[in-house]
Amino acid sequence: MKKSILIYSGGLDSTVLLAKLLGEKREVKALSINYGQRHIRELQAAKAICAKLGVEHRVADLSALTPLLAGSSQTDKTVPVPHGHYAAENMKLTVVPNRNMLMLAVAGAWAISLKYDSVAYAAHRGDHTVYPDCREEFCKPLSEALWNADWHHVELERPFLLYTKAEIVKIGALNCAQEIMAMSYSCYEGGELHCGLCGTDQERRAAFRDANVPDTTKYDPKGLLELPDSQLVS
Amino acid sequence: MKKSILIYSGGLDSTVLLAKLLGEKREVKALSINYGQRHIRELQAAKAICAKLGVEHRVADLSALTPLLAGSSQTDKTVPVPHGHYAAENMKLTVVPNRNMLMLAVAGAWAISLKYDSVAYAAHRGDHTVYPDCREEFCKPLSEALWNADWHHVELERPFLLYTKAEIVKIGALNCAQEIMAMSYSCYEGGELHCGLCGTDQERRAAFRDANVPDTTKYDPKGLLELPDSQLVS
Repeated sequence: MKKSILIYSGGLDSTVLLAKLLGEKREVKALSINYGQRHIRELQAAKAICAKLGVEHRVADLSALTPLLAGSSQTDKTVPVPHGHYAAENMKLTVVPNRNMLMLAVAGAWAISLKYDSVAYAAHRGDHTVYPDCREEFCKPLSEALWNADWHHVELERPFLLYTKAEIVKIGALNCAQEIMAMSYSCYEGGELHCGLCGTDQERRAAFRDANVPDTTKYDPKGLLELPDSQLVS
Repeated sequence: MKKSILIYSGGLDSTVLLAKLLGEKREVKALSINYGQRHIRELQAAKAICAKLGVEHRVADLSALTPLLAGSSQTDKTVPVPHGHYAAENMKLTVVPNRNMLMLAVAGAWAISLKYDSVAYAAHRGDHTVYPDCREEFCKPLSEALWNADWHHVELERPFLLYTKAEIVKIGALNCAQEIMAMSYSCYEGGELHCGLCGTDQERRAAFRDANVPDTTKYDPKGLLELPDSQLVS
């Protein structure tokens, strides 16, 4: 039985990946990283979903690094959260410097110490434009470095790399993960309800619409009224 | 003027690299990682040397990761410190899982946020046998991943990769770093004096002897008596 560490944000993509790995009857442990985010709403979602699915969940606290990671709206409260389309120029403000290498390094350390087979993460096609460290030019050499980092080899799996977010939602529906998809959380605002207007929320809503899968996420009705589904950009 | 983040343990190799980079008139900031080491003696040495040289020094605290990094004598107090030659099989116990990727990821994050040109670290030939993540098979792809991790490219520099420790001591002597080399600390025991007997201390003593550079490190006289210089293995 393959054993995998999943890098788990509690967002939609990694939640679907969790369902997919469990569907393959793997042994999975989930790792969330607290890198000093504005809010912990997504970590709560990660915890609740893992509890529901009986998956061990750990949070690695990297918030001590926050002073080194200035200049991103995810860690620096002086930078406003950008609204608008996910791929827009101003979404670059949400980039935490070197975030994926940090997460993969920690997950790799855990995988090596457990002698697990792989680290899986849910980077997907839609991430490429704004997040350099979700692209193949980063993932491929990083994967080689992880493999050679220890006497015990660990594989880096990124099964969603070529998928759109709508395709990921379809995979979630195929893995009977509709209920847990709705439990996942990705809004940059960090409120109890998804705002429906921030970059990731617009992307999330468009993905369910394009996949033709019912979206049971709890959105703020005001957001849905201000920007109807029909006006979302894919 | 080239701007570099140095991964700085406070040990001999990275201290010589610090002296070398300053000798090249670079702008340097030093980063130490506290990954839950048994002792903080080397961090104190790093701090004292940076203060003396007027270099900004930061400590990134990764000790929250300790529970994930079980099984190494550097982080797990239930595993005894191995004595004996550095390259011996039991020195594998000193390996912190994925340590270099963790350090490079944090240093890379800092370099990206400062828009610095490079991250420098002092991996050398003598590290290769026991530390997989000091070898070219790890460093080369990691260097490529770091370059592609962000819109701002950061170079990974490892100028000592092909040097022996004795050659590094010679470079230190050439950079007038004899006094600060003596201030550096690398003993695994963590006492006020270097024990002179642990793996890194034997390696350190042999390096000065082989380089024909006076070793003004403060060793425990008992250690020197138990194992004279003439019996050290290069």
